[in-house]
Amino acid sequence: MINAAGRDIPQQITGYNNIVPYAGPFAITPVGRLWGPKIRSVKPRSEKILKSIDQAIEAAGLKSGMTISFHHHFRNGDYILNLVVEAIAQKGIKGLTLAPSSLNDVNDAIIPYIEAGVITNIETSGGRGKLGKLMTAGKLARPVLIRSHGGRARAIESGELHIDVAFLGAPCCDKFGNINGTEGKSACGSMGYAMVDAAYADTVIALTDNLVDRPLQRISIPQTQVDYIVELESIGNPQGIASGALRISRDPRELLIADYATTVIEYSGYFKDGYSLQLGSGGASLAAARFIKEKMIAQGITASFGLGGVTAPFVDMLNEGLIQTIFDVQDFDLPSVESIKNNPRHQEMSASFYANPHNGGPIVNQLDVVILSATEVDVNFNVNVITDSNGVIMGASGGHSDTAAEANLAIVVAPLLRGRLPMVLDRVNTIVTPGETVDVIVTERGVAVNPRRTDLMNNLKESGVPVMSIHDLQQIAYNLAGKPEPIPVSDQIVGVVEYRDGSIIDVIRRPL
Amino acid sequence: MINAAGRDIPQQITGYNNIVPYAGPFAITPVGRLWGPKIRSVKPRSEKILKSIDQAIEAAGLKSGMTISFHHHFRNGDYILNLVVEAIAQKGIKGLTLAPSSLNDVNDAIIPYIEAGVITNIETSGGRGKLGKLMTAGKLARPVLIRSHGGRARAIESGELHIDVAFLGAPCCDKFGNINGTEGKSACGSMGYAMVDAAYADTVIALTDNLVDRPLQRISIPQTQVDYIVELESIGNPQGIASGALRISRDPRELLIADYATTVIEYSGYFKDGYSLQLGSGGASLAAARFIKEKMIAQGITASFGLGGVTAPFVDMLNEGLIQTIFDVQDFDLPSVESIKNNPRHQEMSASFYANPHNGGPIVNQLDVVILSATEVDVNFNVNVITDSNGVIMGASGGHSDTAAEANLAIVVAPLLRGRLPMVLDRVNTIVTPGETVDVIVTERGVAVNPRRTDLMNNLKESGVPVMSIHDLQQIAYNLAGKPEPIPVSDQIVGVVEYRDGSIIDVIRRPL
Repeated sequence: MINAAGRDIPQQITGYNNIVPYAGPFAITPVGRLWGPKIRSVKPRSEKILKSIDQAIEAAGLKSGMTISFHHHFRNGDYILNLVVEAIAQKGIKGLTLAPSSLNDVNDAIIPYIEAGVITNIETSGGRGKLGKLMTAGKLARPVLIRSHGGRARAIESGELHIDVAFLGAPCCDKFGNINGTEGKSACGSMGYAMVDAAYADTVIALTDNLVDRPLQRISIPQTQVDYIVELESIGNPQGIASGALRISRDPRELLIADYATTVIEYSGYFKDGYSLQLGSGGASLAAARFIKEKMIAQGITASFGLGGVTAPFVDMLNEGLIQTIFDVQDFDLPSVESIKNNPRHQEMSASFYANPHNGGPIVNQLDVVILSATEVDVNFNVNVITDSNGVIMGASGGHSDTAAEANLAIVVAPLLRGRLPMVLDRVNTIVTPGETVDVIVTERGVAVNPRRTDLMNNLKESGVPVMSIHDLQQIAYNLAGKPEPIPVSDQIVGVVEYRDGSIIDVIRRPL
Repeated sequence: MINAAGRDIPQQITGYNNIVPYAGPFAITPVGRLWGPKIRSVKPRSEKILKSIDQAIEAAGLKSGMTISFHHHFRNGDYILNLVVEAIAQKGIKGLTLAPSSLNDVNDAIIPYIEAGVITNIETSGGRGKLGKLMTAGKLARPVLIRSHGGRARAIESGELHIDVAFLGAPCCDKFGNINGTEGKSACGSMGYAMVDAAYADTVIALTDNLVDRPLQRISIPQTQVDYIVELESIGNPQGIASGALRISRDPRELLIADYATTVIEYSGYFKDGYSLQLGSGGASLAAARFIKEKMIAQGITASFGLGGVTAPFVDMLNEGLIQTIFDVQDFDLPSVESIKNNPRHQEMSASFYANPHNGGPIVNQLDVVILSATEVDVNFNVNVITDSNGVIMGASGGHSDTAAEANLAIVVAPLLRGRLPMVLDRVNTIVTPGETVDVIVTERGVAVNPRRTDLMNNLKESGVPVMSIHDLQQIAYNLAGKPEPIPVSDQIVGVVEYRDGSIIDVIRRPL
């Protein structure tokens, strides 16, 4: 089957029963009802606190073949996922599906347990490093399933991703099970991804290094959703969870891209008082935050809201009144963690509120402008953020396709070349975000506007940015570096890239 | 069938399919899954704003025979329920089930629509005035169904109470559908009851007199749950929604009851640093708040949390650091509305978090002390708060049975006589709260401890309060006022009192 993004999706994929090919960003209108979480009951003054992860695994009734989940707010400081998988392995449990909101390099530690068959399937946002290589090598029982943040929330709420046991790293937890992410030595800020798991998993286990006796004065995940609590010495490495504010890039190429991107915003027609924006955490995005701030001050424009993935430049704009409120699904640095703790205009949101296409309207649905990164783009504006130029999984879907689909203006920034490799191709190796949802591609050599957006082309005429066709942009790259050879791949499917609505937008084939 | 509270529950009741007799406060262990709310989807920049209630009724597809819900946070200032029922009536829709979180005197205005068959069934917390009389007269198609606040949340979440269309009065609403109760001329504070309706109703309609263009900086009910928005000139009368702080009683009888009740708390064994408490909004409860505050200051005791139904004395204790955090399902006065708006330690909670027995632990589950009122009690400690001495519905179940079941110390305060009528009877006319969950009954003439609580009897020996048996207390009343005659009733069942777990604790028979 050739789907609406032009990709050949097999009618049968090992381990997948209901293959729906991608048919367009809003082609699916869902019907029916959400999944009903398990009914709980707890007698007065029951004790939720258990002595160890091992006890919690027993209490949850975790068995071979089940699905376990984690959240990735601790990023490379996370201790939880590795500790839990190790404890599970020691109990002889096998054949689990691992369904974390994302994976980080630190999780390479679980590779031995994958090789030993403790974990046989993975459903997540992406993979990097050794885990990415392992996924790409096709060593899982079925292909890794890649979902966007909004798509994962949708899949959990619809019951497509049924979580048997969710393990939540809890920076602050009271003895009733109320959790927040803002207090304690392992504070990570927003618990946005974990909120969905807590609301739907059959059993929810909080692991905390900050157990407090009295009810929390700020609750992100309520006691009504938490079954057991385990106190640990440490749930994460603070250095890895959130570092100081990231430095704005000094790379002239990134600064030029940021300059073009913010000028595109300025002339797009959306740069008006009350507009809304999301910026990423990459070098060009951080620089863009500085430039857009200068333009907002110069023109007396304030943003009604900012979305993210929050970083210090965003927090500065909030504090200076340039952004009225931030909706925060995840924090990337310490200033952001401090801000969500102390500033009531910095609001925590769940991944579903953020980007789930199948609710009464996620907030991305009202977004004006988003700046997104890419590993590759193609002449159809399709974007790859998941595989590298060798076809190896080394990135994550994140909120990429969610924001691109819903924002008024989705800008993708990428260098025209990486090393000696052109980044504008005839055909990206893997589509994560379909070209029909991408409005502008910005490189250091030129800016291409999606031909669907004649309005934008008109608006950008006076901007001074070097607007050209995507084919011209590609030609510049090819002239500089030659036309790259396609990646030779086998027939073996090692990854399935789900679009946010649950359809399949692409598959990842094992490189030869 | 005689249930565990000693009441004769018919095996068949018009309109009720699955009659489960009450078998004890924690006899039911629920199994299975919660009800799955309807899956929604909203395309980017869709418009939720409609021009009128009439348009919203059309858009919701409201049809004869469906169930509609409302929340009662606007109390006697509510305009919404009456306006909506009138608009429904004008469309010729009939046979609706009305399922508000409670009803107030102001809702007497819908009586003509009940008589005209627009509304044929009612499921709510109780009724007063003319509506109470109408229910008691048996004029509905099936008996009115009375649920506690926790029981209603449970019934909604389990799907037993399926709401087709929820109409939410929204003191502040943005154009995406985010709602809070703290901003605007109709501010009511907590939206705790409405949160459950919004999460589960098939269609959710926000009615607001404060529509704002930009996303709210504080969200109680998220846009993901809201389908349509209608702007109205006024959704409530501020005078009726929240008045100034209620005056502490000067009635010597109420003050004596409050004094005994707080002394019972002081000597109960639960009055320790970190304890928790809930007080009601009645005269004796408000006086008790003052007395308990004095004892807390004198003994250097702070409460870890307070629950409610919040009033100004509670807010004062929060501000003075005597209560560390308040969980708030509803506000009774302006100081409470201001407090939940401005004090982050004053937390909004849903009715499910408050008191639903079938989740992972409602907060009442951790409650030490509650003071509750009563219209009648009996020698088995059963409490009636729903029918008067003529058997007419004139009260509401509220959180009475929820808190009594779960608190360590449930104190019921009542005058020994009302007028010439004893309030301690052989048998209350209607059981709302079963005696096995009531620990102490406090009157101005004496205090009776439930014989199950030998620990309390011991603890109270040195308290100086006049502890006596419930039979002695009854005898004092009978000596003063004579033994009251039982209320003569017909066989017609006009009300069903559901216990919080969904079983039937009592039925209300039509008085002759």
